[in-house]
Amino acid sequence: QVICVLASAAAPSLCWRLFVKISWLLFVFFSSDIEISRAQSPKAVDVLAKEIGLLTDEIEIYGQTKAKVRLSLLERLKDQPDGKYVLVAGITPTPLGEGKSTVTVGLVQALTAHLNINSFACLRQPSQGPTFGVKGGAAGGGYAQVIPMEEFNLHLTGDIHAITAANNLLAAAIDARILHENTQSDKSLYNRLVPVVNGMRGFSAIQLARLRRLGINKTDPETLTEEEISKFVRLDIDPSTITWQRVVDTNDRFLRKVTVGQANTEKGFVRQAQFDIAVASEIMAILALTTSLQDMKERLGKMVVANDKKGEPVTAEDLGVTGALAVLMKDAIKPTLMQTLEGTPVFVHAGPFANIAHGNSSVLADKIALKLVGEKGFVVTEAGFGADIGMEKFFNIKCRASGLVPSVVVLVATVRALKMHGGGPNVTAGAPLKKEYTEENLQLVADGCCNLQKQIQITQLFGVPVVVALNVFKTDSPAEVDLVCKMAKESGAFDAVPCNHWSAGGRGAVKLAQAVEKAANQKNSFKYLYSLELPIVEKIRIIAQKVYGAQDIELSPTAQSQVDRYTQQGFGNLPICMAKTHLSLSHQPERKGVPTGFILPISDVRASIGAGFIYPLVGTMSTMPGLPTRPCFYDIDLDPITEQVKGLF
Amino acid sequence: QVICVLASAAAPSLCWRLFVKISWLLFVFFSSDIEISRAQSPKAVDVLAKEIGLLTDEIEIYGQTKAKVRLSLLERLKDQPDGKYVLVAGITPTPLGEGKSTVTVGLVQALTAHLNINSFACLRQPSQGPTFGVKGGAAGGGYAQVIPMEEFNLHLTGDIHAITAANNLLAAAIDARILHENTQSDKSLYNRLVPVVNGMRGFSAIQLARLRRLGINKTDPETLTEEEISKFVRLDIDPSTITWQRVVDTNDRFLRKVTVGQANTEKGFVRQAQFDIAVASEIMAILALTTSLQDMKERLGKMVVANDKKGEPVTAEDLGVTGALAVLMKDAIKPTLMQTLEGTPVFVHAGPFANIAHGNSSVLADKIALKLVGEKGFVVTEAGFGADIGMEKFFNIKCRASGLVPSVVVLVATVRALKMHGGGPNVTAGAPLKKEYTEENLQLVADGCCNLQKQIQITQLFGVPVVVALNVFKTDSPAEVDLVCKMAKESGAFDAVPCNHWSAGGRGAVKLAQAVEKAANQKNSFKYLYSLELPIVEKIRIIAQKVYGAQDIELSPTAQSQVDRYTQQGFGNLPICMAKTHLSLSHQPERKGVPTGFILPISDVRASIGAGFIYPLVGTMSTMPGLPTRPCFYDIDLDPITEQVKGLF
Repeated sequence: QVICVLASAAAPSLCWRLFVKISWLLFVFFSSDIEISRAQSPKAVDVLAKEIGLLTDEIEIYGQTKAKVRLSLLERLKDQPDGKYVLVAGITPTPLGEGKSTVTVGLVQALTAHLNINSFACLRQPSQGPTFGVKGGAAGGGYAQVIPMEEFNLHLTGDIHAITAANNLLAAAIDARILHENTQSDKSLYNRLVPVVNGMRGFSAIQLARLRRLGINKTDPETLTEEEISKFVRLDIDPSTITWQRVVDTNDRFLRKVTVGQANTEKGFVRQAQFDIAVASEIMAILALTTSLQDMKERLGKMVVANDKKGEPVTAEDLGVTGALAVLMKDAIKPTLMQTLEGTPVFVHAGPFANIAHGNSSVLADKIALKLVGEKGFVVTEAGFGADIGMEKFFNIKCRASGLVPSVVVLVATVRALKMHGGGPNVTAGAPLKKEYTEENLQLVADGCCNLQKQIQITQLFGVPVVVALNVFKTDSPAEVDLVCKMAKESGAFDAVPCNHWSAGGRGAVKLAQAVEKAANQKNSFKYLYSLELPIVEKIRIIAQKVYGAQDIELSPTAQSQVDRYTQQGFGNLPICMAKTHLSLSHQPERKGVPTGFILPISDVRASIGAGFIYPLVGTMSTMPGLPTRPCFYDIDLDPITEQVKGLF
Repeated sequence: QVICVLASAAAPSLCWRLFVKISWLLFVFFSSDIEISRAQSPKAVDVLAKEIGLLTDEIEIYGQTKAKVRLSLLERLKDQPDGKYVLVAGITPTPLGEGKSTVTVGLVQALTAHLNINSFACLRQPSQGPTFGVKGGAAGGGYAQVIPMEEFNLHLTGDIHAITAANNLLAAAIDARILHENTQSDKSLYNRLVPVVNGMRGFSAIQLARLRRLGINKTDPETLTEEEISKFVRLDIDPSTITWQRVVDTNDRFLRKVTVGQANTEKGFVRQAQFDIAVASEIMAILALTTSLQDMKERLGKMVVANDKKGEPVTAEDLGVTGALAVLMKDAIKPTLMQTLEGTPVFVHAGPFANIAHGNSSVLADKIALKLVGEKGFVVTEAGFGADIGMEKFFNIKCRASGLVPSVVVLVATVRALKMHGGGPNVTAGAPLKKEYTEENLQLVADGCCNLQKQIQITQLFGVPVVVALNVFKTDSPAEVDLVCKMAKESGAFDAVPCNHWSAGGRGAVKLAQAVEKAANQKNSFKYLYSLELPIVEKIRIIAQKVYGAQDIELSPTAQSQVDRYTQQGFGNLPICMAKTHLSLSHQPERKGVPTGFILPISDVRASIGAGFIYPLVGTMSTMPGLPTRPCFYDIDLDPITEQVKGLF
């Protein structure tokens, strides 16, 4: 009953899962330990592309194992029905993470290589900051990972670098413009902005657009009045309102707060600023949410970078930089094709920060993959952090942008995290786990299942069936595993299954894949949690109460005045992107389980107008990680003879 | 008498110039104006690679028009004799530049597509800063350019982005390390640097190397004495001596001087720092000078970033980051293959700043190209700025690193620049040219030829024959053109020929190509200008007197103490990389022609130990350009339907 994808004219009678399966069977035959996972050499990406039905001119190859996929594919396949859309989310995690990426990869390996169902994983591109800092790579792990993992974790196809370049060009344009306006007369600015070239003077396209926005319907530079010239040449940016920050894709804590403009050439126009990690750039959020080149260009132009001295928003378009930003991002908009350890296809595309942005991979990759897998196929994507954060943003922000309807949520739990929620001792990165976590303790598990139950209930708010995937560790006892599955089903999960993809690859996630397939055929009554028409504060309150379980919210005066400003500026009907700790359902990371009775404090409210959301800050959110005393890079090395990368895990 | 390159086993009986020629003939047939140059679609890069004898597994394709070439090629072709090696240099230029890149491209187009001689152009990758700032792209121009120029001018294959990532990881490591040392005891540092993992404690490879450098011959972390632990854990960096700066590939003048570390989390350890444009990073200079992956890794480790409190150098290796830097740079080391408008091959690789670094493209690209063209073929590369700067560094630094011997220097001159040297009015970017430059004026030309003569004499110091290429503009009169050629020959040039490649492509440079071919068969007595064994100051004096024509040099006290320090640290026998204005042979940009009687002031002396040179500063050198009031990006746009880039010129 499995239907083939007929995406490719070149291979109309073959299912790509068949190709894929053969390579995997050859592989498992001799896969006995973890060393082999590193030794598995990926198939050439053009072979993979052909297997999944891509035409030769629809891919742009980057080396042997990566290719960008052209958006023209969406046009070619526009009449093809979408596949099933699966989101992998999680319970409230420990600081170590509970393995959502490995579940995502294990699930597609099981679906494609073991159940003969076309499937695609859509993952986020990781930041290089954590790769060299604390966390290490993000390609999954064990027998459920994307290969080659060093390509996945390093430059990939340059998308984050493109974002850095675009972000910083805009930042440089802001400060340079302020300096030029502060040191030149209207006339001198006008002569420079609209110079005489070969005896002629003309407005550029971008300047004509600005004139229209200013209500000046003239096209001849010689006919502007002095007042019109002044309006045209001065953006009058209020430096204290600049929200656009520079970025680097490095964990550089010394850039968290800086003073810029201290050279003599900048004539005293110093100001305090900050650098964020590149994935926190609004341009990354735009890349993740955009649906076409045209849409991306419009979003880039709409980005608000500051207010002018009258309190009106100043945009990238006002600075004349929209076209240049679009040019810098023209390749980044194409998703990158890679493969799992079992040779099944993966899109890696966009990785917005999961705090101040929405933490989900791209809409475009999901859309293309849904066409490629065909009606009975599956696309599995992942939302950062716990379901209260990543999943809520997936539904209310990403699905709104894409118009796509998810079929199933896979909720990842671990015995370890449940024990923590049940009152187990602190779990800290780097420190050995306490014995509560390595020995059977059914009471802690039972007590901690309240968090799992709450996250299931949150999922149900959106009307989508939920399958719990218990990511089994070797220290988990059979009784603990059974208990979690039983309690999950009692809490309303469609099914709950233990998974062993880390140690067994796709084979270890076959039961999960079967459960997901069944759940996808359930009645689905997907709905958003709130209407965009509601006032900003009301939308925040709905998330806080219904999702987090807060008693109420409390806005600081700053937050309230920002809400008023955005509402007055016409941005009131955007969705909400909460910036809250992922370590608790509440705003207090130490409160585990299901905290109740708390008032959620909103310290500030900001906006990403191009990406299209308002983001309230619940406490302070660091947008620049640091390097620890012993960073990951201590163990990273390159063998200059074999060219092999070591220690990147 | 043209010998085929038999580099490829796949096409042993065909010369690649033949393939190339066919595509060009098809093109010129309908090439009537400049619009066609934009419309010319490049051949697929895998086709080009095959034409020039590359094997399938020797290239890594990046999209349709770019490919990285693997260094394994050098091993396969190691017994193949090198081709002829041609350097394109120039007279002292106007601020507009005199067209060295177009001469380089025009010359290879003439050689390959018109004279049936295998040839390769090796060019620098341009910085994105100027592309969006003042200067625009750097792909050549008119009918002598690299296509597609937007790929050339934008991200290319990500090399500059890789440099930025590597440079900034090292910068972050420096400040983080100082913070950690300042806020932790020896014991606590040791516990973090050498943690207990699964009950065991071990040194990493990089830590063992550090112990050996410290003279501690122990491998068990439990056996170090307190004193040894203290030596091991503390780099004791003196923050006031940090020379390693952060970089961005953006013209961001507000980053010329900044204060970092102002967030509370950095506990008051603020310091003043700066950002440079990415191409000014020492890592870029290393990329340009390295000869293998092993060599690059060693150079990266040797980079000196600061002194410790005892005045000893602290290196990247001391910070434990060598391996990570090499991993970040593992793809950047491979040259990128592109093509000219006439379908002839081009390597684009490395583009070090021509001021504080040596301003020449990579040794590796030249070496590979010299093998590929075969014994009778030509590799044409280019040195930034006038011959007094770029060429001097090419010979004394780049040729020393590569061991290659140049056959011919092509010295590019324009009537415009000669008139300026003859006393013509100022030439300024953006302002219209005065009539002296657009009307015939033989006297100004004759008076200005002193600069051409001097640059010819400088070339002759190195024992290499010189051909003058007069880059003809449409306003140049026949008498002016004849005069320049006559005076050039009288000044010792092997030949001097007018070129029209800008308007006519390779056809317009055929005479130049013939002259170059003849000159390459001349007796060549190439020699370096100075011995490395001489004291630093003596080497500086030789360049100042023999090349610039200075009466003498004068070191500031800072410069002198730096010379003393570097000599004492054992870096005295490195070559010299002068950082001097390119707008005059002297240190004063306004002194045109051939200034004499000046004392060259050396304000400071710095060192790039990994790249392998000492760089004296003659006056202040800006390492971060700014954005003008009307930056190039005003005219840059992307058509979201056709995906075509506009305005990138």
